[in-house]
Amino acid sequence: MHFASDNAAGIAAPILNALTRANEGFAFGYGNDDVTERLNRRFAEVFEREVAVFLVPSGTAANALALAHLAPPWGAVICHEGCHLATDECGASEFFGGGLKLVGLKGPGGKVTASAVEARLSHGSWGGPHHVVPAVLSVTQPTEAGTIYGLDELRELAGIAQRRGLAVHMDGARLANALARMNITPAEATWRSGVDVLSLGATKGGALAAEAVIFFDPSRAAGMSERRKRGGHLVSKHRFLAAQFEAFLTDDLWLSLAAHANTMADILSARLRAAGLRIVWPVEANEVFVVVSHRLDRRLRAAGACYYVWSTQSQPDDYTLGEDELLARLVTSFATSESEIKRFAAIASAQESSTVWGGTLSLPKVSSDAG
Amino acid sequence: MHFASDNAAGIAAPILNALTRANEGFAFGYGNDDVTERLNRRFAEVFEREVAVFLVPSGTAANALALAHLAPPWGAVICHEGCHLATDECGASEFFGGGLKLVGLKGPGGKVTASAVEARLSHGSWGGPHHVVPAVLSVTQPTEAGTIYGLDELRELAGIAQRRGLAVHMDGARLANALARMNITPAEATWRSGVDVLSLGATKGGALAAEAVIFFDPSRAAGMSERRKRGGHLVSKHRFLAAQFEAFLTDDLWLSLAAHANTMADILSARLRAAGLRIVWPVEANEVFVVVSHRLDRRLRAAGACYYVWSTQSQPDDYTLGEDELLARLVTSFATSESEIKRFAAIASAQESSTVWGGTLSLPKVSSDAG
Amino acid sequence: MHFASDNAAGIAAPILNALTRANEGFAFGYGNDDVTERLNRRFAEVFEREVAVFLVPSGTAANALALAHLAPPWGAVICHEGCHLATDECGASEFFGGGLKLVGLKGPGGKVTASAVEARLSHGSWGGPHHVVPAVLSVTQPTEAGTIYGLDELRELAGIAQRRGLAVHMDGARLANALARMNITPAEATWRSGVDVLSLGATKGGALAAEAVIFFDPSRAAGMSERRKRGGHLVSKHRFLAAQFEAFLTDDLWLSLAAHANTMADILSARLRAAGLRIVWPVEANEVFVVVSHRLDRRLRAAGACYYVWSTQSQPDDYTLGEDELLARLVTSFATSESEIKRFAAIASAQESSTVWGGTLSLPKVSSDAG
Amino acid sequence: MHFASDNAAGIAAPILNALTRANEGFAFGYGNDDVTERLNRRFAEVFEREVAVFLVPSGTAANALALAHLAPPWGAVICHEGCHLATDECGASEFFGGGLKLVGLKGPGGKVTASAVEARLSHGSWGGPHHVVPAVLSVTQPTEAGTIYGLDELRELAGIAQRRGLAVHMDGARLANALARMNITPAEATWRSGVDVLSLGATKGGALAAEAVIFFDPSRAAGMSERRKRGGHLVSKHRFLAAQFEAFLTDDLWLSLAAHANTMADILSARLRAAGLRIVWPVEANEVFVVVSHRLDRRLRAAGACYYVWSTQSQPDDYTLGEDELLARLVTSFATSESEIKRFAAIASAQESSTVWGGTLSLPKVSSDAG
Repeated sequence: MHFASDNAAGIAAPILNALTRANEGFAFGYGNDDVTERLNRRFAEVFEREVAVFLVPSGTAANALALAHLAPPWGAVICHEGCHLATDECGASEFFGGGLKLVGLKGPGGKVTASAVEARLSHGSWGGPHHVVPAVLSVTQPTEAGTIYGLDELRELAGIAQRRGLAVHMDGARLANALARMNITPAEATWRSGVDVLSLGATKGGALAAEAVIFFDPSRAAGMSERRKRGGHLVSKHRFLAAQFEAFLTDDLWLSLAAHANTMADILSARLRAAGLRIVWPVEANEVFVVVSHRLDRRLRAAGACYYVWSTQSQPDDYTLGEDELLARLVTSFATSESEIKRFAAIASAQESSTVWGGTLSLPKVSSDAG
Repeated sequence: MHFASDNAAGIAAPILNALTRANEGFAFGYGNDDVTERLNRRFAEVFEREVAVFLVPSGTAANALALAHLAPPWGAVICHEGCHLATDECGASEFFGGGLKLVGLKGPGGKVTASAVEARLSHGSWGGPHHVVPAVLSVTQPTEAGTIYGLDELRELAGIAQRRGLAVHMDGARLANALARMNITPAEATWRSGVDVLSLGATKGGALAAEAVIFFDPSRAAGMSERRKRGGHLVSKHRFLAAQFEAFLTDDLWLSLAAHANTMADILSARLRAAGLRIVWPVEANEVFVVVSHRLDRRLRAAGACYYVWSTQSQPDDYTLGEDELLARLVTSFATSESEIKRFAAIASAQESSTVWGGTLSLPKVSSDAG
Repeated sequence: MHFASDNAAGIAAPILNALTRANEGFAFGYGNDDVTERLNRRFAEVFEREVAVFLVPSGTAANALALAHLAPPWGAVICHEGCHLATDECGASEFFGGGLKLVGLKGPGGKVTASAVEARLSHGSWGGPHHVVPAVLSVTQPTEAGTIYGLDELRELAGIAQRRGLAVHMDGARLANALARMNITPAEATWRSGVDVLSLGATKGGALAAEAVIFFDPSRAAGMSERRKRGGHLVSKHRFLAAQFEAFLTDDLWLSLAAHANTMADILSARLRAAGLRIVWPVEANEVFVVVSHRLDRRLRAAGACYYVWSTQSQPDDYTLGEDELLARLVTSFATSESEIKRFAAIASAQESSTVWGGTLSLPKVSSDAG
Repeated sequence: MHFASDNAAGIAAPILNALTRANEGFAFGYGNDDVTERLNRRFAEVFEREVAVFLVPSGTAANALALAHLAPPWGAVICHEGCHLATDECGASEFFGGGLKLVGLKGPGGKVTASAVEARLSHGSWGGPHHVVPAVLSVTQPTEAGTIYGLDELRELAGIAQRRGLAVHMDGARLANALARMNITPAEATWRSGVDVLSLGATKGGALAAEAVIFFDPSRAAGMSERRKRGGHLVSKHRFLAAQFEAFLTDDLWLSLAAHANTMADILSARLRAAGLRIVWPVEANEVFVVVSHRLDRRLRAAGACYYVWSTQSQPDDYTLGEDELLARLVTSFATSESEIKRFAAIASAQESSTVWGGTLSLPKVSSDAG
């Protein structure tokens, strides 16, 4: 019952096998190897266009290098106030970006809205030279709240950015979960919807440690190679990063692993709702945010369940936590089994049937599943 | 009728004269001169304790160097969302601080409140190592809204910071205006109220270009000398910066110049209110924020008045701008004359008596003068 | 015949197996797992003292994070002008260190000498605040020239550093090769000889991607956790980095793999010398620098040999390259086989016996093997 | 007898007067004033082309901002190993440049030579992405050794840079001294000789604190305004920086003040040579480097003379300091009087006539005056 994060899972078998296969013989380091070359071609096929790809060992590196490349040090990156790169990366983007500024917007369900972006860009002071200059709009897909931007939403946001000269960055640490849910092509999900640069994650999806920064306009990547190197993110035995991604993309592995994680989240949320628990935010990818009482929390943990209490600044607007409650984040992964979920839900059910809710009990205010 | 900023004024005569006096003969550069030595002693007297002082040519430099010295690159600086260093210094603190993060809080009248600071520090995620670590509380005195923190407010804020291990920084670009208004000593206004490091301005108060970073615990300043130098902020003919400050502090010049500016703001706000205009935020220092109609705005500018439309994100909560209105910031200085004010107010009065307010007319919602 | 680098080798079998073992079940990310905990204890045993260890995915990251932690932005790092972090890491240390300065010294065989360090620190201008302040002495063990500092040399250098308040950093990307050759304990090779912080490599020695920054005084590591995170170097599925190191350190695997690489270098250099080629710099670890004619170079490459032409600024003083010659670097690894070496040397022998050296032929000037 | 630096002089009278004149009335801050507008036009006349000018309060700021703008963080700046920005600015360029690398070359008389630049760029490793990328050639005119690049030298250097895609930066903190000596136009001395960006100093020449970064191709300056602001180098009462420069450039004041300083250096060096002292490096601008015995040093200081002992790494190649000697740097300025020089030289003469040189006495090895 390990729902702390999808990075609590190990390595998916096909990816681990790929490491063994890539271990044959010698290969030049730093990406000058056959696996990397094959992977680059594969990425072009997957995204249906020429791309410039830079593999790195962490999602934080991918985001920070991408933003530092897109924004000048006096640039502003517009993003959701609760997104991973604004809250969970210890200022990596500010560091790599020479002191650039993240401008976090509020928005329901972890999403920035077109109206909020438009308003923020229209009002307030920018440039001139007293103020930083808006340079990038960064969206997280799926969001930190486990929701998914629809294509319409994405395109509207990208349109605003484009009209004002901002680049569009997508943090796709879990992009596969969105693709699996939306049933659209990688191209539609990204550059065809206006995304300029993508941080594409494989680690949470089943790799050991492999993320990619993908420029849909390769000419924009000039200097990125040096930026990655001096960031310490050019892994010497690069073939092993490439091998992970190659396996990830082969036979739609990334999509099937993600689909499994999504399904587990669906089942988990359905069972918890059935147990009378309140789910906040729609469950659209592989994350379930659920209100649990302290008493249930203790029982779950006593039974070995692992998960984090969600305590960021970015909370759902339309729910109220009782004094006796907390908001738990449950993340499923390719490795989550239905039996774990049943066990977890059973504890929740037992708990709920033996207790009477206090004054803050209410019907779930936000609970629709995606799709 | 130049109310754009107090930096639109020139150099106060005693300070200009001091430059001429300091121009006698030769002197070692970089602060190894008699004027600087005298000034350092003078600062110790003024603040009633040993201090470490670093003169720099701009307020942005003072703030950014101070914060970079107090916070590690992974540190967070808690401040008001509308304060100068967060909005008007083009990311200087982020740059000097190696990518530190400014965490802007909302608060009425440009002030951070104890409860907001307490709440922000208590909730959300800090350190660990995914999140930045709160390192500094920065307050602006007077604030960007022209209001003044009372000593009680300051001490409460400083107490919170101290208990949580944060340093307290004060941006005192206009500190003299607060001192003149509050009638307290520099020591009371700063370290006796919990301030660790002060950015003290002289430029807006009547100097050519002279600001100081003052450490009330000199041991905390180790390395600051190198930090200033590599920031390009160690002026070679340093005696001329010192001379400006020496004159500024002699015979309470700084206080009398500031008192004049404050008085001018009082008169200006009184006359504008009398003319039926709405003043937002209490006028406690040398800034008046007033709602004017576009028509009046045009007449004032046609008559030669200079001022800025206030358009930051940090707006008064409890006022409503009509479609036909804007919020003007009027700043008075040591050089402002009462005749200018009368002329300005006369235009406002004429305008108002010849027009009828539209639907959004209401009694001023925020209008109490300080003291 | 792949002698381009030891990073051209793959993953040693026991390390690859360890990845599979570590793949059982779920584990918290970011180092909060059992493998990491075990590894930390193991490091304390290996180094015979409490240590603070930070795993990262690249040697560049290890060096840059270590130096940034030991030196202020206005600090100078004294090192050999040709060392890896000064020449091959694209300015990573300068970037992570906020613009710190690497001061490269000349020295034979890739080593800084006590006299050169002493002279550089004694003369010239430091601090004050116009000049940067010497903060770290960084030595590479083995050096980029494939030589090894003796313990006497190390201790003398560390003594100079200590007396002047500099920290001592060791870039030990190939430290195992030095340990294997010197037959001393890790403790003797490092902190007992005055090293404060070690970049310890496993990647070149047989891992996939695993390096460690080791603080021998854990109190000095405060903040390092945040520094690593914001550098993007905290790998989420951290157990897999820990597992690599655990296998590396188990049953002296690191030493036996390194000993093999060293032996291969010995054999290679002996055979090349026997073939009449000039070896520059003593072969003390797993690198052989040899002068080859362009004609031989072409034959070797035609036969499939891989190696780099050594063209850095840091060349041997006492050798002369003929117009028709180049300096080749040959690196052996745990994966190098004696048959490859024989094949390579056979080509060299055939070549040399069929040609007459031009005017620059001379007896090898530097050719003694180590120990 | 203050020869410590030309920044030991005060403010030239016409410049001080200009401050007073500029003090009339109010003016918008940050360069939106009439004086600045006039100055910009004046600069275009002086340099015979459209230029983009950024005034800053220190030479360190000018250099660091210029280099940071011309080089990416992974760029290398080729310069003389002893130039001011490499040795006396505490790493400012590395800081502002996000960790860029200064590559210092040796060269006689403080000059980089075409052959050294060519060699450094041709050999060694650059880019790729393991190494930094040569981005700027920076020359100091006059040099730190008080010598002057001839136009032929400049053009040859600039040609090399251009052919390899490097920008050419000139540190002209004392450019007026070179212009006065060479009797050429500012345009010839700079962009017509291949200089792309100039740091032009007024402070050492007689201003209070005023330096300029001048882009000869204004399109290259995009973003520089923000860079200056966030560096804390946009002085709010900007008219007073502009006024200094305006006076400096009016009626060739800069040239006549510099010519005086140069003449004083000529007289000083002639008298010292006549007294039997060895002058090292040609005296081509306003600096005299002279070997003095410790005994003479004591007598001079006892008589009130001020100067620095020259102790950088960058020493003349072809001179030998006796144990009893030191190398003194004497800098003259617009404020130096001939009587001071006579007094100084008289002490030197008296000393020398009453003593017998020790074993290291030799005829001056480097002693030709310029022009």
